[in-house]
Amino acid sequence: MHAKGRLVGVGTGPGDPELLTLKAVRALAKADVVAHFSKRGSNGNARAIVGAHLRPACIELPLVYPVTTEIDKDHNDYRSAIAYFYEESVHKVAEHLEAGRMVAVLSEGDPLFYGSYMHLHVRLADRYPTEVIPGVTAMSGCWSQAGLPIVQGDDVLSVLPGTMSEFELTRRLADTDAAVIMKVGRNLPKIRRALEATGKLARAVYVERGTMANTASMPLADKADDDAPYFSIVLVAGWAGRP
Amino acid sequence: MHAKGRLVGVGTGPGDPELLTLKAVRALAKADVVAHFSKRGSNGNARAIVGAHLRPACIELPLVYPVTTEIDKDHNDYRSAIAYFYEESVHKVAEHLEAGRMVAVLSEGDPLFYGSYMHLHVRLADRYPTEVIPGVTAMSGCWSQAGLPIVQGDDVLSVLPGTMSEFELTRRLADTDAAVIMKVGRNLPKIRRALEATGKLARAVYVERGTMANTASMPLADKADDDAPYFSIVLVAGWAGRP
Repeated sequence: MHAKGRLVGVGTGPGDPELLTLKAVRALAKADVVAHFSKRGSNGNARAIVGAHLRPACIELPLVYPVTTEIDKDHNDYRSAIAYFYEESVHKVAEHLEAGRMVAVLSEGDPLFYGSYMHLHVRLADRYPTEVIPGVTAMSGCWSQAGLPIVQGDDVLSVLPGTMSEFELTRRLADTDAAVIMKVGRNLPKIRRALEATGKLARAVYVERGTMANTASMPLADKADDDAPYFSIVLVAGWAGRP
Repeated sequence: MHAKGRLVGVGTGPGDPELLTLKAVRALAKADVVAHFSKRGSNGNARAIVGAHLRPACIELPLVYPVTTEIDKDHNDYRSAIAYFYEESVHKVAEHLEAGRMVAVLSEGDPLFYGSYMHLHVRLADRYPTEVIPGVTAMSGCWSQAGLPIVQGDDVLSVLPGTMSEFELTRRLADTDAAVIMKVGRNLPKIRRALEATGKLARAVYVERGTMANTASMPLADKADDDAPYFSIVLVAGWAGRP
């Protein structure tokens, strides 16, 4: 009988392969199996980021999200399709763990911060030896790219999904020192209005593809159109009373 | 006349030297000058983290905070002592930049996320070529250490300083999915009361010295005493409606 394998959630950082940690690189060089979540027809950013560091002999295990764009996100059919997909993914990973293999699960940014890896983690971490290697988040990549000090001293930071209602977004922006607004995409017009209503539009910075080769950042007030990729970010720096 | 030098803010991550990024390691191996903020009598964690990666010939520039423990933080004397210290630090760094040297400024965690580096950044980045290398934050180190998925989907995350009033802390904890409470230290009894009042004490996790050799984490409800180092963290995970 084999000893049980080991599950490792590996944060691959925000995009630039140079922002992998030494620990992530060493884990990838040892992994028997490298699993990564992806959409049909694309290997995903995480897989591209780690390309140079995998063992030639490693087994690749793509976990391909079911096509769900036609189904509403809050619909039961979506929820059961996704739940089934996670159970199936857990089963595939567990087979390798039972065979005594080390399985590295790639996660863009940080594995436990809005990452798909955590769906495996909560289902497997109590059954197998598990380690999580933190990574540089997309938001850190974005504010570094923009050269924008985001929080200092006793600032409150709110991380807000751009998907929330305009009322909620406005209320929360009015009640924080600094903000990171994620999932911008087609929510950008709403985000602009909420920033304007709270007097924060002039301080807002728009960043797309932070730390990737084709990154761009600009004051949101200077952005003429409302075209934004889903994973673009809007930043509002705190730091009112700096010495 | 020399060409001007280059300022690089280097995130050194949360403590484990293996959590340095490849980019940080390469920058440190090239830096002519390595500057780091510290308190009198200690070189600081950032300097310890990078020890193995500095060039033997590099110039070390410690920037030692003035002793200010006797002065109240909101007092004008404190603010002017600190402002003077930052101006003096800027002057020291600028001398090396004027001489054409590359100056790496170490910053624990991520340079623009509650880091001292940003005080130099805002005073120098418009005068010299500047780059910021993001790092893994202390909070990422802590939730990874604890194996705690912190946010998923459309969760709101609030990063709150433990220094705020009990009323403010309670109000904000009641109004968020997930929370990271920083600067715990002697604020721990107050933090417990605010968590209890909002029904979140049972979900709270206490972490001290995340990713360092002597780290410890436990459910806050199981922590029998109120002894906590200043840089310990309390985490409340969101993620109510996971599939």
